[in-house]
Amino acid sequence: MSNKAAVMPEIGRIEIRDVGEPAPGPRQAVVQIQAVGVCGSDTAYYTVGYIGDYVVDGPIILGHEVAGEIVAVGAEVTRVKAGDRVAIEPGEPCRNCRECMAGRYHLCPRLKFLATPPYDGALVQRIALDERQLFAIPDSMTYEEAALCEPLSVGIWACHRAGLAPGDHVLVSGAGPVGVLAAQVARAFGAASVTVVDVSEFRLGLARELGFAAERAGEGTRADFDVLLECSGAPTALADGLGRLGTNGRAAMVGMPKQSVELPLSKLNVNELTIGLVNRYAHTWPTAISSSPAAGSTSPRS
Amino acid sequence: MSNKAAVMPEIGRIEIRDVGEPAPGPRQAVVQIQAVGVCGSDTAYYTVGYIGDYVVDGPIILGHEVAGEIVAVGAEVTRVKAGDRVAIEPGEPCRNCRECMAGRYHLCPRLKFLATPPYDGALVQRIALDERQLFAIPDSMTYEEAALCEPLSVGIWACHRAGLAPGDHVLVSGAGPVGVLAAQVARAFGAASVTVVDVSEFRLGLARELGFAAERAGEGTRADFDVLLECSGAPTALADGLGRLGTNGRAAMVGMPKQSVELPLSKLNVNELTIGLVNRYAHTWPTAISSSPAAGSTSPRS
Amino acid sequence: MSNKAAVMPEIGRIEIRDVGEPAPGPRQAVVQIQAVGVCGSDTAYYTVGYIGDYVVDGPIILGHEVAGEIVAVGAEVTRVKAGDRVAIEPGEPCRNCRECMAGRYHLCPRLKFLATPPYDGALVQRIALDERQLFAIPDSMTYEEAALCEPLSVGIWACHRAGLAPGDHVLVSGAGPVGVLAAQVARAFGAASVTVVDVSEFRLGLARELGFAAERAGEGTRADFDVLLECSGAPTALADGLGRLGTNGRAAMVGMPKQSVELPLSKLNVNELTIGLVNRYAHTWPTAISSSPAAGSTSPRS
Amino acid sequence: MSNKAAVMPEIGRIEIRDVGEPAPGPRQAVVQIQAVGVCGSDTAYYTVGYIGDYVVDGPIILGHEVAGEIVAVGAEVTRVKAGDRVAIEPGEPCRNCRECMAGRYHLCPRLKFLATPPYDGALVQRIALDERQLFAIPDSMTYEEAALCEPLSVGIWACHRAGLAPGDHVLVSGAGPVGVLAAQVARAFGAASVTVVDVSEFRLGLARELGFAAERAGEGTRADFDVLLECSGAPTALADGLGRLGTNGRAAMVGMPKQSVELPLSKLNVNELTIGLVNRYAHTWPTAISSSPAAGSTSPRS
Repeated sequence: MSNKAAVMPEIGRIEIRDVGEPAPGPRQAVVQIQAVGVCGSDTAYYTVGYIGDYVVDGPIILGHEVAGEIVAVGAEVTRVKAGDRVAIEPGEPCRNCRECMAGRYHLCPRLKFLATPPYDGALVQRIALDERQLFAIPDSMTYEEAALCEPLSVGIWACHRAGLAPGDHVLVSGAGPVGVLAAQVARAFGAASVTVVDVSEFRLGLARELGFAAERAGEGTRADFDVLLECSGAPTALADGLGRLGTNGRAAMVGMPKQSVELPLSKLNVNELTIGLVNRYAHTWPTAISSSPAAGSTSPRS
Repeated sequence: MSNKAAVMPEIGRIEIRDVGEPAPGPRQAVVQIQAVGVCGSDTAYYTVGYIGDYVVDGPIILGHEVAGEIVAVGAEVTRVKAGDRVAIEPGEPCRNCRECMAGRYHLCPRLKFLATPPYDGALVQRIALDERQLFAIPDSMTYEEAALCEPLSVGIWACHRAGLAPGDHVLVSGAGPVGVLAAQVARAFGAASVTVVDVSEFRLGLARELGFAAERAGEGTRADFDVLLECSGAPTALADGLGRLGTNGRAAMVGMPKQSVELPLSKLNVNELTIGLVNRYAHTWPTAISSSPAAGSTSPRS
Repeated sequence: MSNKAAVMPEIGRIEIRDVGEPAPGPRQAVVQIQAVGVCGSDTAYYTVGYIGDYVVDGPIILGHEVAGEIVAVGAEVTRVKAGDRVAIEPGEPCRNCRECMAGRYHLCPRLKFLATPPYDGALVQRIALDERQLFAIPDSMTYEEAALCEPLSVGIWACHRAGLAPGDHVLVSGAGPVGVLAAQVARAFGAASVTVVDVSEFRLGLARELGFAAERAGEGTRADFDVLLECSGAPTALADGLGRLGTNGRAAMVGMPKQSVELPLSKLNVNELTIGLVNRYAHTWPTAISSSPAAGSTSPRS
Repeated sequence: MSNKAAVMPEIGRIEIRDVGEPAPGPRQAVVQIQAVGVCGSDTAYYTVGYIGDYVVDGPIILGHEVAGEIVAVGAEVTRVKAGDRVAIEPGEPCRNCRECMAGRYHLCPRLKFLATPPYDGALVQRIALDERQLFAIPDSMTYEEAALCEPLSVGIWACHRAGLAPGDHVLVSGAGPVGVLAAQVARAFGAASVTVVDVSEFRLGLARELGFAAERAGEGTRADFDVLLECSGAPTALADGLGRLGTNGRAAMVGMPKQSVELPLSKLNVNELTIGLVNRYAHTWPTAISSSPAAGSTSPRS
């Protein structure tokens, strides 16, 4: 049986190749991939071949927003079984280092992450993954929804890093997929209000359809937000957003501009703001799945 | 113009009396009361005349779950104006002591609280109150809903005291008004699941109608909850509920049994539980109002 | 070469036996034991054979407060080398489960703990241990001091579980070894004052020598402490200590009475107290070692 | 009786003038000033007449690091009495606004602060101040030490804003008075190590004398610090210091460069750093006084 993958042998080209049947290790399961989202990082690797210090230097399989069905399991697997429908967490930590033991496995220096060079991703028919990266989903959740647990995790972690508390008034800069998901997470976690800002009228229209207040960048005047979720990556977005926070305001920096960011700290310090940088996420899949309306009230703890 | 109140001159009797028109102080407003909820504490004062150390020893006006319309304001009032529809926070702190300055005004030793002896409550036509206890409500919120901001605040604070985090699995013991409101708050703040337990099949039915998992007391077996909100006041409910928490479980003790509570700490310590006692609430009205579906996404910060 | 251990073949008897030379696994090191403290749990196993659900049911080696010198290392060991002087953390977690990944390895259900049945302890000449349980100590720290990192860890974790903040006023009930160490930790972490209470005048004298305020149990009257560290295990100590906390008081329950504990919650709730149960400790060895005056200001991060 | 003050009628000139005897309000006490520190802000107002948006536009009395003796009290004063030796907190909040009630009185928009235009400071013989700004000091504390509670408060608050936890490894940039005090606070709050960096060999020598590791700016290589306390105000100090933090590193920004600060966030986000801006302090005087070796273990709670 062939196992076809979308391999990128060089920048800007994808070939379908048979990559061989995966053999699961003792704690691995083989997942028949059913849905893969294409992230901005995938398109960056495809078009320019790098993101920051991560450089593609050989053939690579892209794709890290993934869901599928278990088709085989290793000898010691207990979390999942053949037939289970699962959402996939793309990072595999070492589970042994200081970061892993401190509850920060996403900062593990040996983290292997799908579709981040030199590791292959999941645009493939079948892939073997550690069972601890696999999370069963309810019947009512589609594979497409399950694949979205990955960008949703970015939104969940952004809210966590911003110290979002119920009753907070939230400003989201950037109404792309991550921004809109972050806005929805903020609402699901008890935000008193969520305002989305973007340069694109099209994106703002989508945000309005989802029930958010929406503003063109530069046109908003309210300056007492509690939380900023910066999801645009625009160079001035962080400074602009911080300027709209009130006392004790908290920001999470999700979007990452390539260049350095200039901040007028001597003005911002009056409100004693706190800025949290963000590097992916941790412990988010159970929350992402349970927050689905489909999950109901009986979802397991993990 | 007469200003009639429901005065309780002695236990078990209510008389309608004219209590005279209230004159607002400089920072007070006169509220025309439109809705008053009757709390368990009101019925306790009415039937037995005390709650713990609070003893009725003279005529008293009951009622502290209240909403109304502003009809007059003092000279220095800026937060509200005549015509505003408001929810009323029943506690008036001194705003000067250590507790008030530490952000814990609800623990202010000089707190004056509506319908807690020796202070009168709001079963009256018009009452003068400090403007800082008055919170404007949106047009779409009824006065009855606004009066419910008070028990809703108990639920909000319970979640706060339990350290509820998005993704937590929550057990609520006691499906009375406070328990059901606490359950709804837990859901609104991102709980992954909410299970309600009670002895009354009638109450459990109501909980099920609201979409919660519901169990008869003593029949549930799941023992990995993250959060317990004890809202029943039953003497053994805290010990029972703590026994159903998993590792790092957190509890808020809202219901208060009269007698001492016996806890098998040497068994409970295995999971490193944390128990938070609860004394009313603080800073909750803006959140209570904004969490109304009616409030929309543009509600002000406070 | 013989490797002699103090084996307890039955309750109340210790024999010196040769237990064979330990062979280190790939990530293990062999430690030549140099100092072993005798804990109350050791004497409990020796005299009655059990603590709670942990029952000695065969020969066992006691001792879990330990330090020694590395004499051999497995093939993959990188943290330590032969000749290193080390303090030993007695718990070995699975490093794979939910608790381990959440940063709570001390709550790992598969934790192997020295001298807790069925696992042997360290009253032996040489023992093979995972390198991640071994922490290099500075030259100026003696092995006896290094062995005390274990009870010191209990004190560190108690302060953590009580949410001790700099400036807090701390009450420690129980002036035994754990209580006195907890008191010293509280002082080292910035407590504004530390008061120790005990029934023994001898113990109080020791506490006074260390510079603490000391009171006979039942004689103190101050009731505005911020933090209670209950280290006595006396059945009424928790209730007594909670009664002496002020508003927002926080308690850690280190001592564990066998019987249930009775708490007058309906009185204690006025101050909105928080009670943290305690099960050993986690992540404490680096702090324990660095807090030594000997460690200086250049100790490594872990 | 004359009450002489050091009045600055225009930039760069100080005159001794009689400003009249202060009459205490009901909750005020008159303090005979005994010690006044000269802060960098005082010298800024003296030499250039402004700091940021605070501009001297008339005669002003400088000095806000102050201690003295109570010589008279208003009718309602209960916290202090004539003869008390006190440290003075220079900020007087309104005690009524949202910030004051949230426990953040230092962010009160109506804060009156000694020697910050348009408010006079304390380079005067006698001054009337609200009793709640006055904190009794122990006999063993000198007035000079008591005046230093103000810059010490900056250090305390910096550690608070950085989320300093016991066992953290701390980098302090800037070895001026605030930096050295912040370093001492970090040590008193349980830091595992404290390293001070500065451009001045003289200042580094002082830091070494106090027992700190000391490095010339740009020469240190260690990059796994847990906490950065930026106290220099040098334009590149924040970026430099952030680059030396390890995973989960936290920074407090005390020094305030006039110009905007450039941060390479796309590199810094790997470690998920958190940056806390700082605007003075709150609730610090009791801690500052109790942390004095002189305060002993029986200092009152507030």
